[in-house]
Amino acid sequence: MRNTVGWQVEGPSPTLRRAPLERRDLRPDDLAVRVDYCGVCHTDLHAVSAREGGRRLVPGHEFTGVVTETGPAVTRFTAGDPVAVGNIVDSCGECAMCRAGQENFCHSFPTLTYDGTDRQDGSVTLGGYSREYVVRDRFAHPLPAGLDPAAAAPLLCAGITVWEPLRALGAGQGTRVAVAGLGGLGHLAVKMAVALGADTTVISRSPDKAGDARRLGARGLLVSTDPEQMAGARGRFDVVIDTISSPHDLGPYLRLVAMDGTLSHLGHLGPVTVETLDLLIGRKKLSSAGSGGTPATAAMLHFCAEHGITADIELLPSAQVNEALDRLRRGDVRYRFVLDMSDLD
Amino acid sequence: MRNTVGWQVEGPSPTLRRAPLERRDLRPDDLAVRVDYCGVCHTDLHAVSAREGGRRLVPGHEFTGVVTETGPAVTRFTAGDPVAVGNIVDSCGECAMCRAGQENFCHSFPTLTYDGTDRQDGSVTLGGYSREYVVRDRFAHPLPAGLDPAAAAPLLCAGITVWEPLRALGAGQGTRVAVAGLGGLGHLAVKMAVALGADTTVISRSPDKAGDARRLGARGLLVSTDPEQMAGARGRFDVVIDTISSPHDLGPYLRLVAMDGTLSHLGHLGPVTVETLDLLIGRKKLSSAGSGGTPATAAMLHFCAEHGITADIELLPSAQVNEALDRLRRGDVRYRFVLDMSDLD
Repeated sequence: MRNTVGWQVEGPSPTLRRAPLERRDLRPDDLAVRVDYCGVCHTDLHAVSAREGGRRLVPGHEFTGVVTETGPAVTRFTAGDPVAVGNIVDSCGECAMCRAGQENFCHSFPTLTYDGTDRQDGSVTLGGYSREYVVRDRFAHPLPAGLDPAAAAPLLCAGITVWEPLRALGAGQGTRVAVAGLGGLGHLAVKMAVALGADTTVISRSPDKAGDARRLGARGLLVSTDPEQMAGARGRFDVVIDTISSPHDLGPYLRLVAMDGTLSHLGHLGPVTVETLDLLIGRKKLSSAGSGGTPATAAMLHFCAEHGITADIELLPSAQVNEALDRLRRGDVRYRFVLDMSDLD
Repeated sequence: MRNTVGWQVEGPSPTLRRAPLERRDLRPDDLAVRVDYCGVCHTDLHAVSAREGGRRLVPGHEFTGVVTETGPAVTRFTAGDPVAVGNIVDSCGECAMCRAGQENFCHSFPTLTYDGTDRQDGSVTLGGYSREYVVRDRFAHPLPAGLDPAAAAPLLCAGITVWEPLRALGAGQGTRVAVAGLGGLGHLAVKMAVALGADTTVISRSPDKAGDARRLGARGLLVSTDPEQMAGARGRFDVVIDTISSPHDLGPYLRLVAMDGTLSHLGHLGPVTVETLDLLIGRKKLSSAGSGGTPATAAMLHFCAEHGITADIELLPSAQVNEALDRLRRGDVRYRFVLDMSDLD
């Protein structure tokens, strides 16, 4: 086994503590990655608080770093390459979804970057809040030149999660896109929709985000708590990307969707309820998105490099991980925390 | 006022009784229609049982007949013309939906053929279970030659309700369509999907509908109560049209939808709940449909005339309306009751 160090939670306390970790010895198609930067995702917050029986957890599933060693069958990477890893580190490779490059929909469920089960040795995966990660080469991505590795880390989860529905729903020239919620996912959705050429609007409870919305390239801000503004925008958008992470009524957002348009909601799992009439009137569609496959992730990274898109981040030493999670819980971040792992050396 | 006769329910009893009815004097853009045939829709059943305070109701919103008189501003019809009327008889005409020919989505709600409120005199509309109906010309359709007027009546509600999602979702050559529920809506959805060129499958609880499915042109039948068959058909259909009228779990039907495909469910209003993961995995969409606009209704009638599509009906004298509703409640109809109104003379 390989020895490294990371931030883990174990037992009843939700506080992450520095701890020694073991990584597997490299398989033929494995890379060892020195993790330099790891984004802090809402999923991490949820995973820490929803642990059953105080089980051990090392969060982190959007990170960038440098390849330090490769297994003998690896051809796409050599030591020293900048690399990026997202929230999936393996899949069956054989089902229709895997064959279509949508490993995120693998029929036998993809192996998650943390708190997943390794397909070969059955061990529980430990995430990117650590100094080293060992990953199968197929699930690592070359980090394109020109992207700041710290600000690029959130592209690997937040970025691909908004990229997939924007692309699947045809966001681009001539389409009107609204992004509900200006957070980690939302601000990247705005940047990407604008770069794709869509007429883009932000929907937020906070009128004070109007400046940020325009700075990100949006046409403007629609204040979701203002009934007049919401009524005036009825049926206005071909695509509404709903990035609001807490449970909420989808009705007001469906009513903003234009005829034959789609509301795609992201980021919170579980059952959702909609009024049939909110779908029926205007022949609207409801969809849901999360994560993406490896070809789409590669395309997204290429697009971001071409358009200079990275996340707006607040970079913290990894020792401040608990503060980052606390502030994320309170919504006090514009727009993504990234942990600098160099303090683990 | 004009005097006619029809079948109405009033007071606590759910039994329809023959009663004299009044129709308005013709407005300039009105037609008087002698109702010859009126289909019996699930909505009628629901409306009769869900009446509040025993209010008076005359059901019926899919009928064919003959124009008997026209107002002075009517140019599209003259006395003697065969005509068809569906479930909408007026709309605001000014909102974006009306201007787009989607009066069924009128922002100020369309006037329903029965139990609606007339936009000019505020009266409650009385439906097509009667010998005469007075309707604004814009909401009457010429009945194309070659369509049997009795078997064509159900096209005006059941037909347009399945036509809209089939067209909106691109059913045709090269698409795989499944129709869940082989009833009034379902059997028309199968006929239309087959005529559109789609590879069409029926999903039903009843294995004994396999013969009917094939007779209607479907490739075959998938038995929804057979877990192996359902598992084997996972992700197989680009479009699933769910015509099942009673509340049910949408999950098993969503799991049949292919990558980027859509489940469109029809015919029952109210809230529906879906598991996010059932949408997310495969990037599927949920939609809902009901009724249609006047241009789509005209196109549907034209298509049906061209392809010889009408409903499979059981024609009953209108005096047997209560028997028809009872049998419909028990699902004892293949596939639509139509009332012959000539016994009202």
